[in-house]
Amino acid sequence: ISAKPMKQTEGIAIVSDIMAVNVVTINKDASVYDAAKIIQDTSFNHLPVLNDDRTLAGIITAWDIAKAVSLNKFDLVEDIMTRKVITANVDEQVAVVARRLDLNEVSAMPVINKDGHVIGMITSDDISKLYARRS
Amino acid sequence: ISAKPMKQTEGIAIVSDIMAVNVVTINKDASVYDAAKIIQDTSFNHLPVLNDDRTLAGIITAWDIAKAVSLNKFDLVEDIMTRKVITANVDEQVAVVARRLDLNEVSAMPVINKDGHVIGMITSDDISKLYARRS
Ligand SMILES: C[S@@+](CC[C@H](N)C(=O)[O-])C[C@H]1O[C@@H](n2cnc3c(N)ncnc32)[C@H](O)[C@@H]1O
Repeated sequence: ISAKPMKQTEGIAIVSDIMAVNVVTINKDASVYDAAKIIQDTSFNHLPVLNDDRTLAGIITAWDIAKAVSLNKFDLVEDIMTRKVITANVDEQVAVVARRLDLNEVSAMPVINKDGHVIGMITSDDISKLYARRS
Repeated sequence: ISAKPMKQTEGIAIVSDIMAVNVVTINKDASVYDAAKIIQDTSFNHLPVLNDDRTLAGIITAWDIAKAVSLNKFDLVEDIMTRKVITANVDEQVAVVARRLDLNEVSAMPVINKDGHVIGMITSDDISKLYARRS
């Protein structure tokens, strides 16, 4: 057993090792157009949607915006977001989170603390990057 | 050295072990609306765009559709697709492909054969799934 601190290239990786901490979010009352603009400005595909008290209300993705286009239905973020959000905790193992992404057929999850606030984002891109470093 | 055939859970994984072979593509003359509809119907985020001779012309993603929304510019697929496509070969190591995804900040690549035809698709979701199985 090694006593040195865990690095991202060895040991068991946990969510906090690879999650993004600069999370761009959007309010549930924003328009689909606003969401499209933020996604385009940031190159993120997934935006956590927040209630006014900044707790998690849902998630909206570029895919949802494509859906709005295909239905020609441009309402508020609240109307098209996914409400049942699959989330991760900061101290979970990346492998566990990777299995949860797969099971739920999603590519990203907000990382939330015990107050229900978003403190990070973990994506299959991050996990793919970890795979690249470890292979 | 083991003589048994490589399985996805051991050895060096290559692209053909994990790529999707049922690839949904779109013609360059289709509309952005058509692309949005296909993305919504299939739950794929990335569509290879084909020329009339079925060689690769570009790639269009849900992210590009969000961009079309934010610019309020709904032209043909050809007008908004990315022309310089980052691709993979079927016999490359997954780790090499994972690094290429990271370097180019994309989440998926068409897998092409030597005639320039698309024979598969590999995504960071696929690589994350592989990570889950191997950890
Ligand atoms: C910078 S990425 C950011 C979003 C996300 N990571 C993704 O790949 O969809 C978005 C842009 O990358 C382009 N793109 C996605 N996959 C590509 C690939 N394999 N080769 C070239 N461009 C690609 C899309 O057309 C889009 O304009």
